[in-house]
Amino acid sequence: MRRFLDLADFERDEVSALLQLARRLEKSPEPQALAGKILGLLFLNPSLRTLASMQAGMARLGGSSFVITPGQGTWQLETKLGAVMNGVAAEHIREGIPVLASYCDALGIRAFADCKDLAYDLAETNFTAMAELVDKPLINLESAATHPCQALADWKTMDDLQVSQHGRFVLSWAYHPRALPLAVPAAAVHMAAMRGMDVVVLRPEGFALPPAVMAKARRAAAQSGGSVRETADRRDALEGANIIYAKEWGSTSCYGDTAGDAKLRAELLGWCVRNDWFTNTAPDCRLMHCLPVRRNTAVADEVLDSPRSIVQREAFNRLVVQTAVLYEMLIGKC
Amino acid sequence: MRRFLDLADFERDEVSALLQLARRLEKSPEPQALAGKILGLLFLNPSLRTLASMQAGMARLGGSSFVITPGQGTWQLETKLGAVMNGVAAEHIREGIPVLASYCDALGIRAFADCKDLAYDLAETNFTAMAELVDKPLINLESAATHPCQALADWKTMDDLQVSQHGRFVLSWAYHPRALPLAVPAAAVHMAAMRGMDVVVLRPEGFALPPAVMAKARRAAAQSGGSVRETADRRDALEGANIIYAKEWGSTSCYGDTAGDAKLRAELLGWCVRNDWFTNTAPDCRLMHCLPVRRNTAVADEVLDSPRSIVQREAFNRLVVQTAVLYEMLIGKC
Amino acid sequence: MRRFLDLADFERDEVSALLQLARRLEKSPEPQALAGKILGLLFLNPSLRTLASMQAGMARLGGSSFVITPGQGTWQLETKLGAVMNGVAAEHIREGIPVLASYCDALGIRAFADCKDLAYDLAETNFTAMAELVDKPLINLESAATHPCQALADWKTMDDLQVSQHGRFVLSWAYHPRALPLAVPAAAVHMAAMRGMDVVVLRPEGFALPPAVMAKARRAAAQSGGSVRETADRRDALEGANIIYAKEWGSTSCYGDTAGDAKLRAELLGWCVRNDWFTNTAPDCRLMHCLPVRRNTAVADEVLDSPRSIVQREAFNRLVVQTAVLYEMLIGKC
Repeated sequence: MRRFLDLADFERDEVSALLQLARRLEKSPEPQALAGKILGLLFLNPSLRTLASMQAGMARLGGSSFVITPGQGTWQLETKLGAVMNGVAAEHIREGIPVLASYCDALGIRAFADCKDLAYDLAETNFTAMAELVDKPLINLESAATHPCQALADWKTMDDLQVSQHGRFVLSWAYHPRALPLAVPAAAVHMAAMRGMDVVVLRPEGFALPPAVMAKARRAAAQSGGSVRETADRRDALEGANIIYAKEWGSTSCYGDTAGDAKLRAELLGWCVRNDWFTNTAPDCRLMHCLPVRRNTAVADEVLDSPRSIVQREAFNRLVVQTAVLYEMLIGKC
Repeated sequence: MRRFLDLADFERDEVSALLQLARRLEKSPEPQALAGKILGLLFLNPSLRTLASMQAGMARLGGSSFVITPGQGTWQLETKLGAVMNGVAAEHIREGIPVLASYCDALGIRAFADCKDLAYDLAETNFTAMAELVDKPLINLESAATHPCQALADWKTMDDLQVSQHGRFVLSWAYHPRALPLAVPAAAVHMAAMRGMDVVVLRPEGFALPPAVMAKARRAAAQSGGSVRETADRRDALEGANIIYAKEWGSTSCYGDTAGDAKLRAELLGWCVRNDWFTNTAPDCRLMHCLPVRRNTAVADEVLDSPRSIVQREAFNRLVVQTAVLYEMLIGKC
Repeated sequence: MRRFLDLADFERDEVSALLQLARRLEKSPEPQALAGKILGLLFLNPSLRTLASMQAGMARLGGSSFVITPGQGTWQLETKLGAVMNGVAAEHIREGIPVLASYCDALGIRAFADCKDLAYDLAETNFTAMAELVDKPLINLESAATHPCQALADWKTMDDLQVSQHGRFVLSWAYHPRALPLAVPAAAVHMAAMRGMDVVVLRPEGFALPPAVMAKARRAAAQSGGSVRETADRRDALEGANIIYAKEWGSTSCYGDTAGDAKLRAELLGWCVRNDWFTNTAPDCRLMHCLPVRRNTAVADEVLDSPRSIVQREAFNRLVVQTAVLYEMLIGKC
């Protein structure tokens, strides 16, 4: 495996093999497997889990890593092709990225959506421009439109808890003070569909996932025997749900329009996941969230602090599955 | 040892054993002792020595580490329980800290005092809230009210220089442009008392250490055969002193009151340690300081650049004793 | 080798031996050579290549490193001797640097020119003050007046491409929105002269390299059989050139005078390296640049994206030569 950019690039049995490798390494660590190997990490956006777990994953396998954070000890990087660079950015990705790749055995890149132009973001314009410059194994640490490390960790988390492959998975929009990118909801809906689940996207008007995102999930569902639909009706969505996957994202009906988005979300403070969402609909439903989560804004304390929440296991599984991705990328066949 | 949070949590012979282990590892390094182990480091405040020496300590023992710095590549962390998180902090410690702990074998946390409410800070309210979330070995890298790594390094530094266990240890307030936390002075006075020394706290009016801090030191002195008193009379304090431990801290009489503190300290520019402090009182007295120190503000060049100063050895001993703490925490009995 | 501060500190055959070691380690890595060794890295200025390649170099040899970045997780460091430290800097280099040195086996320091007083900068006043405080092997990661890691990488890059030792090397000034330090141009002109090349410094009026820089290069040329001259005539300079080494630097005729410098450079937007510079003068001339480079400001896309550009190899050679420097410093004779 040379690239881990999108779960959709893999067949279902390839994902199963990665998850099996992850479980094997979780049980039987191989602390020398990547001795002498170096992972380069380029963070164009902030991180806690990804930053810590990628370094920890390399270390667990005996390798090492370096971190580059433009704007924090490193100059800003320009991404636009043809730019006349007389502004703040001192270096172009066309130099910076191949140079970093030349210093390591695998590179991870985090580059969030610009959140200005939906088509531009969904096309992964920026990430693709960067990926084309990398001639080493490459890991997507969250791009404009997907987050495969998170998706794989989420899949394993449901396996760990023996959530049925055909169970109901509700991706629910949740309130946040500002518009956030679509990468995680897009990755989650695709992952659950690929896993074979009965996927329901629960979101208010104006926040429907883009048709391309839904179509991709439906294609995965068609192959796996799952299904994908969307609704704004909470009771309908949660009825019998096994998982609620809470996530904040920006309005798609006025994408890139800060004022329009703010107006829409001002009415949506009630979209903070609370215990009463589950009464009489899905008493045993578990809460997933990729983190970070704003307490009492997106999800209430009463949910996060209850056994319903499996966000800690989800976050821990980031380390577990990334260890498998690194292993597979750097030393071969699982 | 699962936690290294406060020197007061240990018996005197446990401290002796740690110091003996530190001396042993200093003389006979064990470069593979912590192979495969990972230390997580969470810095909620700036650092030079702690940041470098914790990483160096792990590396000296064959382990590795990762560093998370909220506000610098990682989002701000909310610490308040029950907070409605619609402000700048994107993640709560209730998620962030257990997640980081799950990625490592031991966690170190630095979290300075808020310096608003004395009782809140002395109760270690913030640090305790964080510590309760950690199910791994945990090291205090400076909390609101103590700094055990510094205290242990200071103890060893005096042992190295054969300063008598019953010698006179003067903790002297020193000038600084702003109010600093009480963690280091509180740790130093307790450490010296626990070591059995004749401890004098020399400070101007308005800067007396809190009664709880003095009482804790007195309890330690009662056990060790030492003594603890305070004074504003420099000549009295320094008479026959073996050690002057200079430290800047905020007014306790108007704690959290920036204007009141500033008014008090405006009169105290003379509290910059100079050579003439020692003439006729304590010619052989050594200067200790935890660093960073503001030259010619808290301590004069003439003192820092003279053989009187042992601040470099103190700082080096941070590495030496922390190596022992990590060793003891991660592989067992000393 | 205890110090790697300036290529001029070495004899030509010492440089040759280092380059030979670099080639040997490039071909036959020694992944355990520096097991247990620690490199401290102090960055007083931003970096991408240096930051990543120094860490990667240590890791390639089995060692580890820590990074300290004042102003980013670490307090600001004061450099002025005798300073009364009541401003923003919390720590003086006289404490901070020896402390960091005591935590590692070798220290690297990056400290750019202040760009206020030319004589001060050319005398390496700041870097020398820091170097005097380090009792461990020390590497200059770019100081006010030189950048020996870059110079050594550049030398190797020309060797790799079999550029004649007596070929023509044109150091050409290039446009940048602001005045940049002289470290790289000074290092490049000396390196090329020491290599024996026919060195031409091509620069507009007001940007002549300082006499001391030219004299140092001429002394190196005298020993190696090379030559050094300067001109403002591009056609004359490039005629038959093998290498154009583009670099931005500040006006020396009004050094430290931001307004004066800006006025001069406002007329110089044409100093952006383009393909037509080479037509009829030096069709096979290669482009070198230390990076970061501002595209379409200092060098045009058409040049950077053509086979003429060897900037990627140059940057990769940073890792290769630094690995040799670390190896030689930390385990001995090459």
